[in-house]
Amino acid sequence: MPNKPCLAIDLGGTKILTALVSPQGEVVTRKLFPTDAQAGPDDVINRALSSLEQVLYQASLNTTGIEGIGIAVAGPLDISRGIVTTSPHLPGWDNIPLRDIIKQKFNVPSFLIHDASASALAEHRFGAGKGTKDMLYITISTGIGGGIITGGKLYVGTSGTAGEIGHMTIVTNGPQCTCGNRGCWEMFASGTALAREAKKRINEGAQSSILKLAAGNIENITAKTVSDAAEDGDALALELVEQLGVYFGIGLANLINIFNPEMIVIGGGLSKMGSLLLAPAYRTAAERAFPISMEKASIVSSKLSDDAGVIGAATYVIDRIAELS
Amino acid sequence: MPNKPCLAIDLGGTKILTALVSPQGEVVTRKLFPTDAQAGPDDVINRALSSLEQVLYQASLNTTGIEGIGIAVAGPLDISRGIVTTSPHLPGWDNIPLRDIIKQKFNVPSFLIHDASASALAEHRFGAGKGTKDMLYITISTGIGGGIITGGKLYVGTSGTAGEIGHMTIVTNGPQCTCGNRGCWEMFASGTALAREAKKRINEGAQSSILKLAAGNIENITAKTVSDAAEDGDALALELVEQLGVYFGIGLANLINIFNPEMIVIGGGLSKMGSLLLAPAYRTAAERAFPISMEKASIVSSKLSDDAGVIGAATYVIDRIAELS
Repeated sequence: MPNKPCLAIDLGGTKILTALVSPQGEVVTRKLFPTDAQAGPDDVINRALSSLEQVLYQASLNTTGIEGIGIAVAGPLDISRGIVTTSPHLPGWDNIPLRDIIKQKFNVPSFLIHDASASALAEHRFGAGKGTKDMLYITISTGIGGGIITGGKLYVGTSGTAGEIGHMTIVTNGPQCTCGNRGCWEMFASGTALAREAKKRINEGAQSSILKLAAGNIENITAKTVSDAAEDGDALALELVEQLGVYFGIGLANLINIFNPEMIVIGGGLSKMGSLLLAPAYRTAAERAFPISMEKASIVSSKLSDDAGVIGAATYVIDRIAELS
Repeated sequence: MPNKPCLAIDLGGTKILTALVSPQGEVVTRKLFPTDAQAGPDDVINRALSSLEQVLYQASLNTTGIEGIGIAVAGPLDISRGIVTTSPHLPGWDNIPLRDIIKQKFNVPSFLIHDASASALAEHRFGAGKGTKDMLYITISTGIGGGIITGGKLYVGTSGTAGEIGHMTIVTNGPQCTCGNRGCWEMFASGTALAREAKKRINEGAQSSILKLAAGNIENITAKTVSDAAEDGDALALELVEQLGVYFGIGLANLINIFNPEMIVIGGGLSKMGSLLLAPAYRTAAERAFPISMEKASIVSSKLSDDAGVIGAATYVIDRIAELS
């Protein structure tokens, strides 16, 4: 059984979280960096490599002191080949062998994993889903991602890209998504959707404190602005968050009918809105899903929050090494 | 390892298939009965019990000669309690403890399983999906059902009702489904949808040989009438089957994005249309799903056809007995 810590990196569209994680899932050291995705793949990869070196140095370790490196990234991956095929949040990435780049640099076992799969694994092993058999993890932030646990084990699919639940069509003739599909769930139930709807309504003349929170500039409106306004009781913001919750519930109902899960763990930035978002989502799911499946599904908030990705990526390394040895 | 055959029953909305199945998945004896679902639960249950007795008698066996009985039924089930909670195709069924009714009558181990899960298990063990790890089985007939194999094992969810893929919303504000949800996939991509659209178009004045095949009576139009007309080259029928295929492909894309499966096995009455249905479905899925997941997914026809349900129900009995002993 591996017993040294792992390095783990959660490479997102806006930030890179790099950490040293114990085999018990504890974050020993963590550092946060901006991704600066617009700078392109070479730059982002250099920043990622440097972040790993810094965390290792900060923990006074060298590579003999770690089991390996876990790399969590969004977007469709080919995990068996360790390749980031494309990523909606990392412009310019096209079939980049990220795992091997990191492996060659540090010369330790390295594994690539979908970020939402990593979070699912972490929440299942150490977080809200401990002890469950059939669990889904859903992150709702800029987009929607999913991680799947079946029979107590992480399910990643044939090439490791399972869980792209955000790109499930819920409106057949809906708007075009960056993924190429139309009417994807995340076009209606993500932070991007929330900000877009707020801009649209304010452009149409709706009165709201959202604009004040965005310093009077419509272009500054983000999901955070809308959610802050909703928490302050702004009528338009409350309406938009309610609508977001309803759309979120429609996808939840689909997943409850498909997976009949024991638990759904909700994480990601927007989940921090709590019941403002989750109450309409839950109500809508209950209206739409099969009652027996709805009854069995506990819908709960993430316990590990922003650390779920690195904890899961490290846990994945430990699991894979144990499996391969 | 259990080595006697099993009795198995596949209780559908229109027919009951009862069979004796060897541990190697061979159908030794089979008998087909009409369900006559309109007669209500008591009548259907009596017919099911009688069908099991008849197959046993025909095989010159008594209950000591079988391992147990597998019972495949559509609709949301609670398999741990052996209960058919409701069934869209069995009017009047409400929390019926079908497993225990059969168990008490025959006094052998008896297990309830979702019919599409049974078919998935059969196709995975003995049919088209042999040797795959991550496989979906989809039946397209009156409705749409699904069975799920993850990591080489049947996945049934927490109460055994996983795989209700036909009730995934693909049109958010779509028409009301009998399940209570709106815009379900099977409202657009099932035999029921095909017949409904044909009736509607002919009522609106469309010319087609469909009506002739239905003996001049619009009410006689079924999915079979439309599919026969399409095979004869009727323009309206071809258009409707193409449209059905497109809708079928939209749901396929969702499942390919969610599961990243190695294989999707398509069964059920409508799948017998072959490429008339599957070509537009495949094309649509390829337009909508993530390329990496689409590439990895082989979409193939069922090998065990109408016997998949009974073979799977019997296999489930063998698996459960081995697991429990």
